[in-house]
Amino acid sequence: MRHAADLNADLGESTRTKRFPHEAEIFPYLSSCNIACGFHGGDPVYMEKAIRQALKHGLRIGAHPSYPGRENFGRMPMELPEAELQAMLRYQVSALKGMVESLGGQLSYVKPHGALYHTLCRDERQAQLAVAVFHSIDPNLQVMGLPDSALARSASDAGLGYIREGFADRRYAADGQLLSRKQSGAVLRDPAKVVEQVRQILMEGMVTSNTGARLPLQVDSLCIHGDNPMAVPILQALDHFFRQSGIQKGNL
Amino acid sequence: MRHAADLNADLGESTRTKRFPHEAEIFPYLSSCNIACGFHGGDPVYMEKAIRQALKHGLRIGAHPSYPGRENFGRMPMELPEAELQAMLRYQVSALKGMVESLGGQLSYVKPHGALYHTLCRDERQAQLAVAVFHSIDPNLQVMGLPDSALARSASDAGLGYIREGFADRRYAADGQLLSRKQSGAVLRDPAKVVEQVRQILMEGMVTSNTGARLPLQVDSLCIHGDNPMAVPILQALDHFFRQSGIQKGNL
Amino acid sequence: MRHAADLNADLGESTRTKRFPHEAEIFPYLSSCNIACGFHGGDPVYMEKAIRQALKHGLRIGAHPSYPGRENFGRMPMELPEAELQAMLRYQVSALKGMVESLGGQLSYVKPHGALYHTLCRDERQAQLAVAVFHSIDPNLQVMGLPDSALARSASDAGLGYIREGFADRRYAADGQLLSRKQSGAVLRDPAKVVEQVRQILMEGMVTSNTGARLPLQVDSLCIHGDNPMAVPILQALDHFFRQSGIQKGNL
Amino acid sequence: MRHAADLNADLGESTRTKRFPHEAEIFPYLSSCNIACGFHGGDPVYMEKAIRQALKHGLRIGAHPSYPGRENFGRMPMELPEAELQAMLRYQVSALKGMVESLGGQLSYVKPHGALYHTLCRDERQAQLAVAVFHSIDPNLQVMGLPDSALARSASDAGLGYIREGFADRRYAADGQLLSRKQSGAVLRDPAKVVEQVRQILMEGMVTSNTGARLPLQVDSLCIHGDNPMAVPILQALDHFFRQSGIQKGNL
Repeated sequence: MRHAADLNADLGESTRTKRFPHEAEIFPYLSSCNIACGFHGGDPVYMEKAIRQALKHGLRIGAHPSYPGRENFGRMPMELPEAELQAMLRYQVSALKGMVESLGGQLSYVKPHGALYHTLCRDERQAQLAVAVFHSIDPNLQVMGLPDSALARSASDAGLGYIREGFADRRYAADGQLLSRKQSGAVLRDPAKVVEQVRQILMEGMVTSNTGARLPLQVDSLCIHGDNPMAVPILQALDHFFRQSGIQKGNL
Repeated sequence: MRHAADLNADLGESTRTKRFPHEAEIFPYLSSCNIACGFHGGDPVYMEKAIRQALKHGLRIGAHPSYPGRENFGRMPMELPEAELQAMLRYQVSALKGMVESLGGQLSYVKPHGALYHTLCRDERQAQLAVAVFHSIDPNLQVMGLPDSALARSASDAGLGYIREGFADRRYAADGQLLSRKQSGAVLRDPAKVVEQVRQILMEGMVTSNTGARLPLQVDSLCIHGDNPMAVPILQALDHFFRQSGIQKGNL
Repeated sequence: MRHAADLNADLGESTRTKRFPHEAEIFPYLSSCNIACGFHGGDPVYMEKAIRQALKHGLRIGAHPSYPGRENFGRMPMELPEAELQAMLRYQVSALKGMVESLGGQLSYVKPHGALYHTLCRDERQAQLAVAVFHSIDPNLQVMGLPDSALARSASDAGLGYIREGFADRRYAADGQLLSRKQSGAVLRDPAKVVEQVRQILMEGMVTSNTGARLPLQVDSLCIHGDNPMAVPILQALDHFFRQSGIQKGNL
Repeated sequence: MRHAADLNADLGESTRTKRFPHEAEIFPYLSSCNIACGFHGGDPVYMEKAIRQALKHGLRIGAHPSYPGRENFGRMPMELPEAELQAMLRYQVSALKGMVESLGGQLSYVKPHGALYHTLCRDERQAQLAVAVFHSIDPNLQVMGLPDSALARSASDAGLGYIREGFADRRYAADGQLLSRKQSGAVLRDPAKVVEQVRQILMEGMVTSNTGARLPLQVDSLCIHGDNPMAVPILQALDHFFRQSGIQKGNL
């Protein structure tokens, strides 16, 4: 049984030639936001807009670095030399941190994006390299990722706080992984189904997979996808559910 | 008569698809270096290499932000909306500052690059906007640019230190501006001529223009162009001259 | 009642950093294919692969030019000066035509992509400009687009053949337009539903909209989306239906 | 002793973000021009402008394909898989050929650009692959490159005409190669020196190297660099010399 729930979303991902027009509507419903750092999406103008919105709404701010690749939106896995992996993380997280601070806020955590998220959750060596960069930038940074992952272990080894992430609007497979976006039903669009999945995670510490299996799941933050066409109705339904259940939105 | 001279150069400008192969040879001869921030040149790998070299050689480090434009190397003037000018400077300077700090150093100043350098030295409004960003990132940052320019006035108004820059290997025109690169003789390649120009600037506070006019010139740092094919022999000749004349390299 | 049906799909859209891995499986089921020209997708290597596959399977080949914009996959409308609209179409269609011919085939038609498709179907002036370019490249080129559109009228005025396109796997709205991809149910993924829509179009000259309205629809070619995760099962179901119904695949 | 001389230059290399402002002034002095194909430089708008100028002045038109790389202007050698080398040449030459033809002209030859020029003049295997592509596009295309090179031999083997190129405004080294641009004096800027080099090549079939050695040199076309700041005065001086000497400009 939980009395608080953190909701996060990826924001600041627009650029001059690729707009996510509904970003601005989502901020009021969140308690945390992951802001793109200019590689998979985000240019300085849209990043700065997102930071200002996040500060206005009092959100906790995370950096959302990625493999380079605007064309594939950071969704293509890349095998980078270790020095390049570290340099590109150092660049992106530094850029966002300095922007947030110069606008009067502070950077709380790092959540890797897309293919990089999956690599760092799976690969112990690369997770350690990444965490070393985050630590060298700021030893108070936390890291957000999958529970019980290489990234979680590396953060713990380095003494960085870790935010275990679950997904409100994605169906889980029977092995506890997310169901591939290529399979139908991978993204939950019905607000009632999202509320039920969130309720189960928060209240029971469980999630029901696409096969009907009940899986244990402990998380510290729940992700909503801003590009889900139903994002706003979903967030409104979650708001309603939180109020009814006496759950406070935010990070404890 | 001067007892110290600061030598700076633009470094870290290589990328995977455009290499400046002689960068590494130049570091030992400098006392300051301006490191690209990824827009006109520089990618995280080459930026990180340059920062490590600068730290190894004990150089003062500046951020070298630019208009976007790898194709034109930041040499095409752009009319940006004010919010975009500020956001792109905030992003670039933040990125370099965080990288330098996470590698154990500190960022001392900002020197704009190419077309942006000329815009900010000329346009009072844009200079103020830029300086406001630098100040918000770190009120101890200094700014490097042309003496007696809009940028110099804006820095002074905002309480930021200003480093007046002169050019060791570029010919000055009779109006005190640099002779356009399109004119023959704009770049000095003969080490003896560079030494003579530097001697005159440091010892006499004067420079001789392409028309033979003697112009007063007070500077705090002298720029050498790393892409001058004669950069290394020039730097060696300057070293020899400094030793002979009892001039210490470095910033006072 | 129809005895032949043309099936087309957009192909050759992969690039080094964005792969559509299932393209190769789709060729055998088509009678026509629209090959990207390097702007929204496609690079010379993947374009050449697609042309060779199309020739191997005896498909009719169309050029599939687009607004520039790999980041948004040509899905962002652009207001281009007339000279630029014409030059970028001339470049793209010429590139594909020459490639096809040098590999032993011939280019039969042009189908614009994404946002450009919608602009040219709606805007009479731009449609005329585009058609003038196609005509200047080859007066035997046909044009593919929506029935009863600005593009159809311009092609007819210029004496170019026109291929009226319908959509097998997209739901139609009550006004005869395609239902926006942002609405749920916009893409048909159930092979049985696609077969039923195709049957209705071919046999009855009608389509049922998302509101249940029956709309008249006369087409010469039916588009299947290669990025529909169900593309192959859908194409297999259509094949089965065509064989059962005595419909020949191909363009008459 | 020659009665005609062909003068060529690389044109159409501007893009929206990198302009070569003096291109238009050069056309009247040439008899051939090599038009960029969009990879190292040139976008469809500037390519089309250049083609229209070339047609207006009655110039012979060549395609000027390159390795990709706007950032390095096609000057970085690349090791491409054979299929990629062929596909990118097929794309570029096809694009330019179709554009020229649809604007009422015809494509006469192909001259590779920058690093690709040097690779194809040196490497027999790659020269054969390239020539095979040119031949498949149009067996009447000619090829322009260094005399007595791998490219010359490949063109001859494939039955394509070959245009031997010399350089009017570049100093030759003692081994018959061009003096590297990194060496001072590599580019001739004095019109009188260019005229003398051209006179020697045309009248005596010789060129004097930077060491004073006289080298035999037989060429069919002479290249002037449009980005030479002295291009227009040089071309005027050549015009004057041609008139005085009774040499006709053009290709025999």
